[in-house]
Amino acid sequence: MDAIEAILGRRSIRKYEDRAVEPEKIDTLVRAGMAAPSAGNQQSWRFIVVTDRAQLDRLAVATPYSGMLTHAPLAIVVCGDTTSAKYPEPYWVEDCSAAMQNILIAARALGLGACWLGYHPRQERKDEARRILGLPANLDTLGVASIGYPAEEKLPSDRDVEDYVRFDRWE
Amino acid sequence: MDAIEAILGRRSIRKYEDRAVEPEKIDTLVRAGMAAPSAGNQQSWRFIVVTDRAQLDRLAVATPYSGMLTHAPLAIVVCGDTTSAKYPEPYWVEDCSAAMQNILIAARALGLGACWLGYHPRQERKDEARRILGLPANLDTLGVASIGYPAEEKLPSDRDVEDYVRFDRWE
Repeated sequence: MDAIEAILGRRSIRKYEDRAVEPEKIDTLVRAGMAAPSAGNQQSWRFIVVTDRAQLDRLAVATPYSGMLTHAPLAIVVCGDTTSAKYPEPYWVEDCSAAMQNILIAARALGLGACWLGYHPRQERKDEARRILGLPANLDTLGVASIGYPAEEKLPSDRDVEDYVRFDRWE
Repeated sequence: MDAIEAILGRRSIRKYEDRAVEPEKIDTLVRAGMAAPSAGNQQSWRFIVVTDRAQLDRLAVATPYSGMLTHAPLAIVVCGDTTSAKYPEPYWVEDCSAAMQNILIAARALGLGACWLGYHPRQERKDEARRILGLPANLDTLGVASIGYPAEEKLPSDRDVEDYVRFDRWE
Protein backbone atom coordinates (compact mmCIF):
# COMPACT_ATOMS: atom_id res chain seq x y z
CA MET A 1 0.00 0.00 0.00
CA ASP A 2 1.12 3.53 -0.75
CA ALA A 3 2.66 5.21 2.29
CA ILE A 4 0.59 8.40 2.15
CA GLU A 5 -2.59 6.35 1.76
CA ALA A 6 -1.60 4.22 4.75
CA ILE A 7 -0.96 7.30 6.91
CA LEU A 8 -4.04 9.30 5.88
CA GLY A 9 -6.39 6.31 5.96
CA ARG A 10 -5.30 4.84 9.29
CA ARG A 11 -8.09 4.70 11.86
CA SER A 12 -8.48 2.98 15.21
CA ILE A 13 -9.87 -0.49 14.43
CA ARG A 14 -11.40 -2.36 17.36
CA LYS A 15 -13.23 -5.27 15.67
CA TYR A 16 -11.32 -8.16 14.16
CA GLU A 17 -11.96 -11.32 12.18
CA ASP A 18 -11.41 -14.66 13.90
CA ARG A 19 -8.16 -15.20 12.02
CA ALA A 20 -4.53 -15.34 13.14
CA VAL A 21 -1.93 -12.84 11.92
CA GLU A 22 0.81 -14.62 9.98
CA PRO A 23 4.29 -14.80 11.58
CA GLU A 24 5.90 -12.93 8.67
CA LYS A 25 3.47 -10.04 9.17
CA ILE A 26 4.23 -10.01 12.90
CA ASP A 27 7.92 -9.85 12.01
CA THR A 28 7.29 -6.85 9.74
CA LEU A 29 5.30 -5.10 12.47
CA VAL A 30 8.08 -5.37 15.06
CA ARG A 31 10.68 -4.33 12.49
CA ALA A 32 8.53 -1.27 11.79
CA GLY A 33 8.64 -0.45 15.49
CA MET A 34 12.41 -0.97 15.57
CA ALA A 35 12.80 1.46 12.64
CA ALA A 36 11.52 4.38 14.73
CA PRO A 37 13.88 7.22 15.57
CA SER A 38 14.94 7.74 19.18
CA ALA A 39 16.49 10.56 21.18
CA GLY A 40 20.26 10.38 20.74
CA ASN A 41 19.68 7.06 18.94
CA GLN A 42 19.23 5.42 22.34
CA GLN A 43 16.82 2.83 20.83
CA SER A 44 14.88 2.57 24.08
CA TRP A 45 11.87 0.70 22.61
CA ARG A 46 11.18 -2.94 23.49
CA PHE A 47 8.31 -5.07 22.18
CA ILE A 48 6.38 -7.99 23.59
CA VAL A 49 4.45 -9.89 20.94
CA VAL A 50 1.40 -11.48 22.56
CA THR A 51 -0.53 -14.21 20.74
CA ASP A 52 -1.19 -16.47 23.73
CA ARG A 53 -4.96 -16.46 24.31
CA ALA A 54 -4.69 -16.45 28.10
CA GLN A 55 -2.30 -13.50 28.06
CA LEU A 56 -4.51 -11.55 25.65
CA ASP A 57 -7.50 -12.19 27.91
CA ARG A 58 -5.55 -10.95 30.93
CA LEU A 59 -4.62 -7.75 29.09
CA ALA A 60 -8.25 -7.32 28.00
CA VAL A 61 -9.43 -6.89 31.60
CA ALA A 62 -6.29 -5.24 33.01
CA THR A 63 -7.17 -1.73 31.82
CA PRO A 64 -10.28 0.15 30.65
CA TYR A 65 -11.21 0.23 26.95
CA SER A 66 -9.18 -2.94 26.26
CA GLY A 67 -12.06 -5.36 25.87
CA MET A 68 -11.39 -5.83 22.16
CA LEU A 69 -8.35 -7.93 23.13
CA THR A 70 -10.74 -10.78 23.97
CA HIS A 71 -11.22 -11.22 20.22
CA ALA A 72 -7.91 -9.85 18.92
CA PRO A 73 -5.41 -12.49 17.73
CA LEU A 74 -2.41 -10.26 18.44
CA ALA A 75 -1.18 -7.54 20.73
CA ILE A 76 2.18 -5.80 20.64
CA VAL A 77 3.15 -4.22 23.95
CA VAL A 78 5.49 -1.26 23.56
CA CYS A 79 7.83 -0.68 26.49
CA GLY A 80 10.73 1.67 27.14
CA ASP A 81 14.02 0.47 28.60
CA THR A 82 14.84 3.28 30.98
CA THR A 83 18.39 1.99 31.52
CA SER A 84 19.12 2.67 27.84
CA ALA A 85 18.53 6.38 28.42
CA LYS A 86 21.30 8.72 27.34
CA TYR A 87 19.68 11.66 29.08
CA PRO A 88 18.00 12.19 32.44
CA GLU A 89 14.76 13.30 30.78
CA PRO A 90 12.16 10.62 29.95
CA TYR A 91 12.61 10.70 26.19
CA TRP A 92 11.58 7.02 26.07
CA VAL A 93 7.93 8.17 25.92
CA GLU A 94 8.59 9.93 22.62
CA ASP A 95 10.76 7.08 21.27
CA CYS A 96 8.06 4.55 22.07
CA SER A 97 5.24 6.70 20.71
CA ALA A 98 7.09 6.89 17.38
CA ALA A 99 7.55 3.11 17.42
CA MET A 100 3.86 2.60 18.23
CA GLN A 101 2.83 4.87 15.35
CA ASN A 102 5.09 2.95 12.95
CA ILE A 103 3.36 -0.27 14.02
CA LEU A 104 -0.10 1.23 13.47
CA ILE A 105 0.77 2.42 9.97
CA ALA A 106 2.51 -0.84 9.08
CA ALA A 107 -0.56 -2.75 10.26
CA ARG A 108 -2.77 -0.83 7.88
CA ALA A 109 -0.29 -1.32 5.05
CA LEU A 110 -0.40 -5.09 5.67
CA GLY A 111 -4.21 -5.21 5.49
CA LEU A 112 -4.60 -5.32 9.26
CA GLY A 113 -6.40 -3.01 11.68
CA ALA A 114 -4.98 -1.75 14.95
CA CYS A 115 -5.77 0.40 17.96
CA TRP A 116 -3.41 2.11 20.45
CA LEU A 117 -4.37 1.36 24.04
CA GLY A 118 -2.74 3.97 26.26
CA TYR A 119 -1.02 2.93 29.50
CA HIS A 120 1.55 5.65 30.22
CA PRO A 121 1.40 7.82 32.31
CA ARG A 122 -1.27 6.00 34.36
CA GLN A 123 0.63 4.10 37.03
CA GLU A 124 -2.16 1.63 37.82
CA ARG A 125 -2.23 0.49 34.19
CA LYS A 126 1.54 0.14 34.07
CA ASP A 127 1.47 -1.91 37.28
CA GLU A 128 -0.93 -4.32 35.59
CA ALA A 129 1.36 -4.66 32.57
CA ARG A 130 4.31 -5.34 34.85
CA ARG A 131 2.43 -8.09 36.66
CA ILE A 132 0.97 -9.80 33.59
CA LEU A 133 4.04 -9.59 31.36
CA GLY A 134 6.77 -10.14 33.96
CA LEU A 135 8.45 -6.81 33.25
CA PRO A 136 11.73 -6.10 35.06
CA ALA A 137 12.22 -2.79 36.87
CA ASN A 138 13.99 -1.17 33.91
CA LEU A 139 11.01 -1.57 31.55
CA ASP A 140 8.20 0.98 31.62
CA THR A 141 5.03 0.51 29.53
CA LEU A 142 3.89 3.05 26.96
CA GLY A 143 0.88 1.12 25.70
CA VAL A 144 -0.46 -1.81 23.74
CA ALA A 145 -1.33 -2.14 20.07
CA SER A 146 -4.37 -4.36 19.59
CA ILE A 147 -4.12 -5.90 16.10
CA GLY A 148 -6.06 -8.19 13.76
CA TYR A 149 -7.71 -8.50 10.38
CA PRO A 150 -10.33 -5.74 10.40
CA ALA A 151 -14.01 -6.58 10.81
CA GLU A 152 -15.05 -2.93 10.53
CA GLU A 153 -14.39 -0.23 7.97
CA LYS A 154 -13.90 3.46 8.64
CA LEU A 155 -13.46 6.38 6.30
CA PRO A 156 -10.37 8.58 6.67
CA SER A 157 -10.80 11.42 9.17
CA ASP A 158 -12.03 14.65 7.60
CA ARG A 159 -10.27 17.57 9.27
CA ASP A 160 -9.67 21.16 8.21
CA VAL A 161 -6.05 22.29 7.93
CA GLU A 162 -7.10 25.76 9.11
CA ASP A 163 -8.02 24.37 12.52
CA TYR A 164 -4.56 22.94 13.22
CA VAL A 165 -1.95 24.79 11.14
CA ARG A 166 -0.40 28.25 11.02
CA PHE A 167 2.50 29.70 9.06
CA ASP A 168 5.85 31.05 10.30
CA ARG A 169 4.43 32.17 13.67
CA TRP A 170 1.45 31.19 15.81
CA GLU A 171 0.41 34.74 16.67
CA MET B 1 6.38 4.81 -2.22
CA ASP B 2 5.34 1.58 -0.50
CA ALA B 3 4.41 2.18 3.15
CA ILE B 4 6.60 -0.59 4.61
CA GLU B 5 9.57 0.65 2.56
CA ALA B 6 8.95 4.21 3.79
CA ILE B 7 8.84 3.06 7.42
CA LEU B 8 11.82 0.69 7.32
CA GLY B 9 13.99 2.97 5.21
CA ARG B 10 13.38 6.21 7.12
CA ARG B 11 16.55 7.72 8.56
CA SER B 12 17.40 11.08 10.09
CA ILE B 13 18.43 13.30 7.17
CA ARG B 14 20.32 16.46 8.10
CA LYS B 15 21.68 17.66 4.73
CA TYR B 16 19.40 19.18 2.12
CA GLU B 17 19.50 20.47 -1.41
CA ASP B 18 19.06 24.19 -1.99
CA ARG B 19 15.52 23.69 -3.24
CA ALA B 20 12.13 24.67 -1.87
CA VAL B 21 9.51 22.11 -0.89
CA GLU B 22 6.40 22.50 -3.02
CA PRO B 23 3.23 23.82 -1.32
CA GLU B 24 1.27 20.67 -2.20
CA LYS B 25 3.89 18.52 -0.47
CA ILE B 26 3.76 20.77 2.60
CA ASP B 27 -0.01 20.31 2.61
CA THR B 28 0.39 16.52 2.52
CA LEU B 29 2.91 16.66 5.38
CA VAL B 30 0.58 18.57 7.70
CA ARG B 31 -2.34 16.35 6.75
CA ALA B 32 -0.17 13.36 7.67
CA GLY B 33 0.39 14.93 11.08
CA MET B 34 -3.33 15.60 11.47
CA ALA B 35 -4.08 11.93 10.69
CA ALA B 36 -2.31 10.80 13.87
CA PRO B 37 -4.34 9.15 16.60
CA SER B 38 -4.74 10.95 19.92
CA ALA B 39 -5.79 9.99 23.43
CA GLY B 40 -9.58 10.06 23.61
CA ASN B 41 -9.51 11.60 20.12
CA GLN B 42 -8.60 14.94 21.74
CA GLN B 43 -6.60 15.98 18.61
CA SER B 44 -4.17 18.02 20.66
CA TRP B 45 -1.57 18.47 17.89
CA ARG B 46 -0.95 21.85 16.29
CA PHE B 47 1.54 22.63 13.52
CA ILE B 48 3.52 25.68 12.55
CA VAL B 49 4.88 25.52 9.00
CA VAL B 50 8.05 27.58 8.82
CA THR B 51 9.51 28.56 5.45
CA ASP B 52 10.52 32.13 6.31
CA ARG B 53 14.33 32.25 6.15
CA ALA B 54 14.70 34.54 9.18
CA GLN B 55 12.49 32.29 11.30
CA LEU B 56 14.38 29.16 10.22
CA ASP B 57 17.67 30.86 11.10
CA ARG B 58 16.33 31.78 14.54
CA LEU B 59 15.28 28.18 15.19
CA ALA B 60 18.69 26.98 13.97
CA VAL B 61 20.47 28.71 16.85
CA ALA B 62 17.71 28.42 19.47
CA THR B 63 18.58 24.86 20.51
CA PRO B 64 21.55 22.46 20.18
CA TYR B 65 21.85 20.14 17.19
CA SER B 66 19.57 22.36 15.09
CA GLY B 67 22.21 23.91 12.84
CA MET B 68 20.88 22.12 9.77
CA LEU B 69 17.96 24.55 9.78
CA THR B 70 20.28 27.19 8.33
CA HIS B 71 20.11 25.28 5.05
CA ALA B 72 16.72 23.59 5.40
CA PRO B 73 13.91 25.12 3.31
CA LEU B 74 11.20 23.93 5.68
CA ALA B 75 10.52 23.18 9.32
CA ILE B 76 7.29 21.94 10.85
CA VAL B 77 6.98 22.71 14.55
CA VAL B 78 4.76 20.24 16.40
CA CYS B 79 2.99 21.66 19.44
CA GLY B 80 0.38 20.31 21.82
CA ASP B 81 -2.69 22.33 22.79
CA THR B 82 -2.95 21.55 26.48
CA THR B 83 -6.43 23.11 26.71
CA SER B 84 -7.72 20.39 24.36
CA ALA B 85 -6.84 17.74 26.95
CA LYS B 86 -9.62 15.39 27.97
CA TYR B 87 -7.57 13.99 30.84
CA PRO B 88 -5.33 15.48 33.53
CA GLU B 89 -2.35 13.41 32.33
CA PRO B 90 -0.09 14.94 29.64
CA TYR B 91 -1.14 12.64 26.80
CA TRP B 92 -0.36 15.44 24.35
CA VAL B 93 3.28 14.26 24.30
CA GLU B 94 2.19 10.90 22.88
CA ASP B 95 -0.33 12.50 20.49
CA CYS B 96 2.32 14.86 19.14
CA SER B 97 5.00 12.17 18.89
CA ALA B 98 2.63 10.12 16.71
CA ALA B 99 1.98 13.18 14.56
CA MET B 100 5.72 13.87 14.27
CA GLN B 101 6.38 10.29 13.21
CA ASN B 102 3.65 10.51 10.56
CA ILE B 103 5.34 13.62 9.18
CA LEU B 104 8.75 11.91 9.07
CA ILE B 105 7.38 8.89 7.18
CA ALA B 106 5.35 11.06 4.82
CA ALA B 107 8.46 13.13 4.10
CA ARG B 108 10.34 10.05 3.01
CA ALA B 109 7.40 8.87 0.91
CA LEU B 110 7.41 12.25 -0.86
CA GLY B 111 11.12 12.03 -1.73
CA LEU B 112 12.11 14.35 1.11
CA GLY B 113 14.42 13.86 4.07
CA ALA B 114 13.64 14.89 7.63
CA CYS B 115 15.02 14.95 11.15
CA TRP B 116 13.20 15.18 14.51
CA LEU B 117 14.71 17.88 16.72
CA GLY B 118 13.61 17.22 20.28
CA TYR B 119 12.39 20.06 22.49
CA HIS B 120 10.13 18.47 25.11
CA PRO B 121 10.76 17.97 28.03
CA ARG B 122 13.61 20.52 28.11
CA GLN B 123 12.07 23.74 29.37
CA GLU B 124 14.83 26.03 28.05
CA ARG B 125 14.24 24.77 24.51
CA LYS B 126 10.49 25.19 24.83
CA ASP B 127 10.97 28.73 26.10
CA GLU B 128 12.92 29.53 22.93
CA ALA B 129 10.14 28.11 20.74
CA ARG B 130 7.56 30.17 22.62
CA ARG B 131 9.57 33.34 22.08
CA ILE B 132 10.40 32.80 18.40
CA LEU B 133 7.03 31.46 17.30
CA GLY B 134 4.74 33.60 19.46
CA LEU B 135 3.15 30.64 21.17
CA PRO B 136 0.26 31.33 23.55
CA ALA B 137 0.26 29.80 27.03
CA ASN B 138 -1.88 26.84 25.98
CA LEU B 139 0.63 25.57 23.40
CA ASP B 140 3.56 23.43 24.51
CA THR B 141 6.29 22.38 22.07
CA LEU B 142 7.14 18.74 21.37
CA GLY B 143 9.80 19.37 18.75
CA VAL B 144 10.63 20.45 15.23
CA ALA B 145 10.84 18.47 12.01
CA SER B 146 13.65 19.78 9.79
CA ILE B 147 12.74 18.94 6.18
CA GLY B 148 14.16 19.27 2.67
CA TYR B 149 15.19 17.40 -0.44
CA PRO B 150 17.93 15.05 0.79
CA ALA B 151 21.58 15.77 0.01
CA GLU B 152 22.75 12.63 1.80
CA GLU B 153 21.83 8.95 1.53
CA LYS B 154 21.67 6.46 4.35
CA LEU B 155 20.99 2.75 4.33
CA PRO B 156 18.14 1.39 6.46
CA SER B 157 19.13 0.59 10.03
CA ASP B 158 20.27 -3.01 10.54
CA ARG B 159 18.98 -4.24 13.90
CA ASP B 160 18.40 -7.73 15.32
CA VAL B 161 14.85 -8.58 16.37
CA GLU B 162 16.26 -10.72 19.19
CA ASP B 163 17.66 -7.61 20.88
CA TYR B 164 14.31 -5.85 21.14
CA VAL B 165 11.50 -8.42 21.05
CA ARG B 166 10.13 -11.17 23.30
CA PHE B 167 7.03 -13.35 23.10
CA ASP B 168 4.00 -13.47 25.43
CA ARG B 169 6.02 -12.44 28.53
CA TRP B 170 9.27 -10.56 29.11
CA GLU B 171 10.62 -12.95 31.74
